[in-house]
Amino acid sequence: VRVEAVFVGTELLEGRLNTHLVELAKRFAPLGLALARTATVGDDPAEIERAVREALDRSSYVLVFGGLGPTFDDLTREGTARALGRGLEFRPELLAEIRRKFARRRVRMAPMNRRQAYLVQGGRAVRNNHGSAPGQRVDAGRGRSIYLLPGPESEMVPMLERAVLPELSRAAGDSRPAKLEFHCGGLIESEADRRLRPILAGYPKANFTILSSRGLVSFYATAPTARGLAGLRAKVLRVLGRHVFAEGASSLAAAVGRRLLERKEKLSVAESCTGGLVAEQVTKVPGSSNYFTGGLVSYDNRVKLVELGVPRRILDEEGAVSAACAEAMADGARLRFATDWAVSVTGIAGPDGGTKAKPVGTVFIALAGPDKTASRRYWLSGDRNEVRHKAANAALFWLWDSLR
Amino acid sequence: VRVEAVFVGTELLEGRLNTHLVELAKRFAPLGLALARTATVGDDPAEIERAVREALDRSSYVLVFGGLGPTFDDLTREGTARALGRGLEFRPELLAEIRRKFARRRVRMAPMNRRQAYLVQGGRAVRNNHGSAPGQRVDAGRGRSIYLLPGPESEMVPMLERAVLPELSRAAGDSRPAKLEFHCGGLIESEADRRLRPILAGYPKANFTILSSRGLVSFYATAPTARGLAGLRAKVLRVLGRHVFAEGASSLAAAVGRRLLERKEKLSVAESCTGGLVAEQVTKVPGSSNYFTGGLVSYDNRVKLVELGVPRRILDEEGAVSAACAEAMADGARLRFATDWAVSVTGIAGPDGGTKAKPVGTVFIALAGPDKTASRRYWLSGDRNEVRHKAANAALFWLWDSLR
Repeated sequence: VRVEAVFVGTELLEGRLNTHLVELAKRFAPLGLALARTATVGDDPAEIERAVREALDRSSYVLVFGGLGPTFDDLTREGTARALGRGLEFRPELLAEIRRKFARRRVRMAPMNRRQAYLVQGGRAVRNNHGSAPGQRVDAGRGRSIYLLPGPESEMVPMLERAVLPELSRAAGDSRPAKLEFHCGGLIESEADRRLRPILAGYPKANFTILSSRGLVSFYATAPTARGLAGLRAKVLRVLGRHVFAEGASSLAAAVGRRLLERKEKLSVAESCTGGLVAEQVTKVPGSSNYFTGGLVSYDNRVKLVELGVPRRILDEEGAVSAACAEAMADGARLRFATDWAVSVTGIAGPDGGTKAKPVGTVFIALAGPDKTASRRYWLSGDRNEVRHKAANAALFWLWDSLR
Repeated sequence: VRVEAVFVGTELLEGRLNTHLVELAKRFAPLGLALARTATVGDDPAEIERAVREALDRSSYVLVFGGLGPTFDDLTREGTARALGRGLEFRPELLAEIRRKFARRRVRMAPMNRRQAYLVQGGRAVRNNHGSAPGQRVDAGRGRSIYLLPGPESEMVPMLERAVLPELSRAAGDSRPAKLEFHCGGLIESEADRRLRPILAGYPKANFTILSSRGLVSFYATAPTARGLAGLRAKVLRVLGRHVFAEGASSLAAAVGRRLLERKEKLSVAESCTGGLVAEQVTKVPGSSNYFTGGLVSYDNRVKLVELGVPRRILDEEGAVSAACAEAMADGARLRFATDWAVSVTGIAGPDGGTKAKPVGTVFIALAGPDKTASRRYWLSGDRNEVRHKAANAALFWLWDSLR
């Protein structure tokens, strides 16, 4: 089984972030499925036609996302039909279903929604319970199939899970590759590479990828069968040791959350240069209200002084970007929010504000726990966004490591 | 000039978010350039070869990203050489340069970094000032060129700006298309469509895209020449009116920031279900420390009570997810942080916590300003992440609209 995806939408070529690939991969991996390749094309029937035809030449399944809406620029139906040398056919029962959906929401159906009742010849509709656009499954001959799915994630994902994944999973059968995935903090890519290299030589049939992002390092291994990775997991865990905060797809914040839940302890945060990013990542995890109490974004020094109780002497003599200030912030948050743990971040994310002694990327992180308060200094590279994310990851990794 | 991009990296097919397309588009648009198509392939020389060859068949410029590192899975050099039917050539001067970079950082160069000193035959190196991997520019004959650029954004972007964009811009010359871009809040996609449709009929040579994301709606118009969009901007602004918070690429938080700066006013936030997301978006904007004072993430009710002064009666009788609580939170933040404006968000982001009366997606937003405090109730659809982002956008848009 070879699966390719085609993403349709001029906006995707013009700077709109496409998160579909992430959503797909998240659901493919546990089934042992992988995307062989993807293409992104604009709302142009000729480009859609070409991309679908090329993908069909190489693959048994082609998933096409987007361009199924009612408006003038929704051209996936047309492009796909042309790729197959077929026409479109109007299906009155689909129009009736679309009408019913509008009626249920007490909205008049616009005439343009009629376009959504056309299927590629020989296709069958895939029900959409969260929007007006039906999906389509089209048999393309010679054992190949095309799925057309709507662009909005809230519509696409349920259809993918209900209709597409079961079929792909059946088709993949026993041919599924084995896969391992490790996510680490507190070490750099080349150090991970150095530790892993001697092990990997023993797995000639496997594929390996190491990559680093925002101060974290991930290692992926795949092989055609489970035998191809036999014994690898234990060896990787031995050399990467306590740097591994998660296996499989899990965020660092979720790993922190699991440890806090186990220990029945609570967390609060005090942030300056990360401006809410640490709190945002912690609370992105469902159920985080069970261990996260609150956070303070102290962007202004007066807030550090009044709300977190950072002594004026520290702000005057050592500055807001200092180990002493970070520690006072963490202590202040821990006291104020009455939590077991508090983590604080203060630094210079840039682009302005750097000095010779404290250049852009200088960040102090402090951790206040039941036993003690400590701080660390970091020199982080990258632009404002990169520094902020690296700082948040460093703070969360240190916390996770301290919760063992 | 037709430009395509090929992104190389198995991790991109396995769930790692690719933000390169966004970074490219942001820099292409002001130059009147556009990507015609993109492909994403894994770390497999045969797939890289095929994708590069196909892109070359259609385009005058092919930009290939990633796979230039020193490790075993960095195969873009090999795949590209094969697509051109050429070999790789070792360049001693590049090795010397890589050695110098390591020496400057007082790190020993690993033998594997030698791989980075190979160029595709006939190629020339593109200097990388932020990492070890040099980029490459390869003349592919018949007026076509390939650029190989490293994967990490902090290395890729400066090289793109220094070497690639000037060449593309020169090549595009006078053939650049005209482009308009509007970003709106406070209305839904179909309403924008209804208002725009009568106007668009007058522009037969232009292409239009409307799309909505996380509660905001964007409208893009392009035409082969400036004449193709003559007069359109004024007409669009007339029908979309005060819904347009930005033209061109600008975030809602940046638009809020510009108005606060103009008015010399300060902002604070109090967040429950968004968990720091509003503060994070506000502080993502460089220079936000000039108008953002601080924020409180009051995840626990005790924090709402003690830190924001929400009366116990409100929490007991109306609950934390209520108009009264939202207003008390905004008033509390405004007072506590001594700002002109404060915005608050409280709601149920899910997946748990919904009730019949207040289902998942119920969100109250309050805005406290110099003259009054008001609140609004929202019913937001989508998963936890979607609800949080829609709530943050709704809060920021309301604030922006109130700052006129």
